[in-house]
Amino acid sequence: MFAPVYLDHNATTPLDPEVREAMLPYLDARFGNPSSRHEYGRQARAAIEEARARVAASVGAHSTEVIFTSGGSEANNLIIKGAAARLKAGTVATSAIEHPCVREPARQLARRGWQHAEIAVDRDGLIDRAHWRQVLDDRPAIVSVMLANNESGVVQDVAALAAEARRSGALFHTDAVQAVGKIAVDFRALGVNAMTLSAHKVHGPLGIGALVCDKRVDLEPLVAGGGQERNLRSGTENVAGIVGFARACELAAQRLSVDTEHIAELRRQLESGLGAMHAQVFSAAADRLPGTSFFAFDGLDGETLVGKLDRAGFAVASGSACSSVSPEPSRTLLAMGVSAELAKGAIRVSLGRSNSADQVDDFLAALRATLAGLRNLMAVSA
Amino acid sequence: MFAPVYLDHNATTPLDPEVREAMLPYLDARFGNPSSRHEYGRQARAAIEEARARVAASVGAHSTEVIFTSGGSEANNLIIKGAAARLKAGTVATSAIEHPCVREPARQLARRGWQHAEIAVDRDGLIDRAHWRQVLDDRPAIVSVMLANNESGVVQDVAALAAEARRSGALFHTDAVQAVGKIAVDFRALGVNAMTLSAHKVHGPLGIGALVCDKRVDLEPLVAGGGQERNLRSGTENVAGIVGFARACELAAQRLSVDTEHIAELRRQLESGLGAMHAQVFSAAADRLPGTSFFAFDGLDGETLVGKLDRAGFAVASGSACSSVSPEPSRTLLAMGVSAELAKGAIRVSLGRSNSADQVDDFLAALRATLAGLRNLMAVSA
Repeated sequence: MFAPVYLDHNATTPLDPEVREAMLPYLDARFGNPSSRHEYGRQARAAIEEARARVAASVGAHSTEVIFTSGGSEANNLIIKGAAARLKAGTVATSAIEHPCVREPARQLARRGWQHAEIAVDRDGLIDRAHWRQVLDDRPAIVSVMLANNESGVVQDVAALAAEARRSGALFHTDAVQAVGKIAVDFRALGVNAMTLSAHKVHGPLGIGALVCDKRVDLEPLVAGGGQERNLRSGTENVAGIVGFARACELAAQRLSVDTEHIAELRRQLESGLGAMHAQVFSAAADRLPGTSFFAFDGLDGETLVGKLDRAGFAVASGSACSSVSPEPSRTLLAMGVSAELAKGAIRVSLGRSNSADQVDDFLAALRATLAGLRNLMAVSA
Repeated sequence: MFAPVYLDHNATTPLDPEVREAMLPYLDARFGNPSSRHEYGRQARAAIEEARARVAASVGAHSTEVIFTSGGSEANNLIIKGAAARLKAGTVATSAIEHPCVREPARQLARRGWQHAEIAVDRDGLIDRAHWRQVLDDRPAIVSVMLANNESGVVQDVAALAAEARRSGALFHTDAVQAVGKIAVDFRALGVNAMTLSAHKVHGPLGIGALVCDKRVDLEPLVAGGGQERNLRSGTENVAGIVGFARACELAAQRLSVDTEHIAELRRQLESGLGAMHAQVFSAAADRLPGTSFFAFDGLDGETLVGKLDRAGFAVASGSACSSVSPEPSRTLLAMGVSAELAKGAIRVSLGRSNSADQVDDFLAALRATLAGLRNLMAVSA
């Protein structure tokens, strides 16, 4: 089978063989419903509680703070709408570069009597501190700022933001989905009230994630019913998914420094090549995730480039995968003040632990050839 | 490894080896994010759309009517709360024997200006038609009556109820989680607006299900964000789960008549033995799922019996697995007018395709011995 080179790890990651190994018994003889009070049920319940402790330990949280959900999108909806349901209508403030699964719940609240404030970012994609202070002056009830952006890879100073937001009385949430496995993430050190995790971004399975949430947050469940997850998320637990998620978190933590060094070296190689091709690399001056490179070439269309690279055997992204149903220019770039024209040309390469220097060289060669072809076409048609 | 005899198929079912086989490629090389516009993404997208068509075909629906969710609980919350969010506050009517993941969302609505009416059932566990007509006279906006009850196995005449409810202007939903794979289920023939499915009840994986919903229903998403599932359920899709769910639905439909005959024969054998032990079998006079037997012995505690049977190597349930965190008497039985004392003694055996006549004989022998032991104890302590 032809396997293209995978350079899209911010969209999803291959399942780690050790994670799959951990999951398989729960897709076989260990099939019990964790709520059942017999041997099969107890086995499943024990697996979940062990997994919860491992997920918690991997991000410096207490196991009672971990609420398993079906993924990052559900966790983000749960904190925004679940917390709002227990508060008087006020302001929910989210950064202008949040994933749609933070922005859309905030917009839903805005149709129910809440105010939705978007916090501006600067040209590098970092929170604009002047605007931030204005937003805090309005005393928002809920603030959500992502730890690392899925497109640019920019890492915010969440610890500082959380401290300021909480001093002004807000509940502070961070979407850490893109950060885990790429930089060190510690729930206590960040000082946030709630944090979203997703398994499939860290070589775990699709369909499982968590909201890490301290006890001060009062939440109404999105999925109400049988009372699972301390009544905060009902539904029979996805045992195999939870077990795989825990193993993936452990492996990510164990391998973090080795992975990071390897991946950062590959990006240096990549961006040196991109520089020679006169690519504009976004947020290059900011603190970024080690493996993310978001760039554009003046006058070229990102969708077209991604399609041509795909046919050449390289899997990269144009915009954020999750919102790529609509081929609009990246909201992250527009928020950074990038022109719509340049934004439409954006491509994202996100490297992972299995990528090699040879693959990066091959990708750069393919990109060079594709650019030459496109420019010839444009010269001919001009 | 010691493997107890599994007689709890209404709680969850073992994953079918063919289902696991279908899933494994998606836990390996086919790991793409379905929203990605490269080879990995297209492969995942194609798998989901093929699975959607198969799930739809297995229950007589159109594939555009299938919304994948993380399971039955989420689907039930989505229809109740998602439909209500787009309607003027009115009445939501649910039967008195619904699963908590239908009842609790209705109770959440009741805290937001809605009325929640519970439709009574008769001594057999069937909808009380006199009360039903009273409820319809109040013109409920949303009505939800389950197709088959998880505890008693009673099958309601949903086609008739749906026709009447819809004539009175209500949106009609049925939770078909327990019915699929056990009786024929056809979305069109039932004439409902929406229907809930779950994979793990039909030898599919945990963590995946669907809401089948016709186009006349306007829904607000519970999980908003990236726009997956026609904007009705955001979040990166659980591809392996969806593929497994589809295979499980197909197998259930193919094997229905053979499974049903085998399982019904085992229940005859079981209930003949129970009769000889003077068990009271609930809903015995009603149309029931072929493999469900819900019974009690006067003066004995169900929890105790389940514990003793577990130690003897037989996995059965006392109450509904999903709500068995709280050892209260079964709400289904109380709604049927069974005394709290007798209800506390209830045990549920739910048979599956892999059970054998020998296992039923062994179970009856173990039950006989357990009863004798308990009655000796009671005689001694009396």
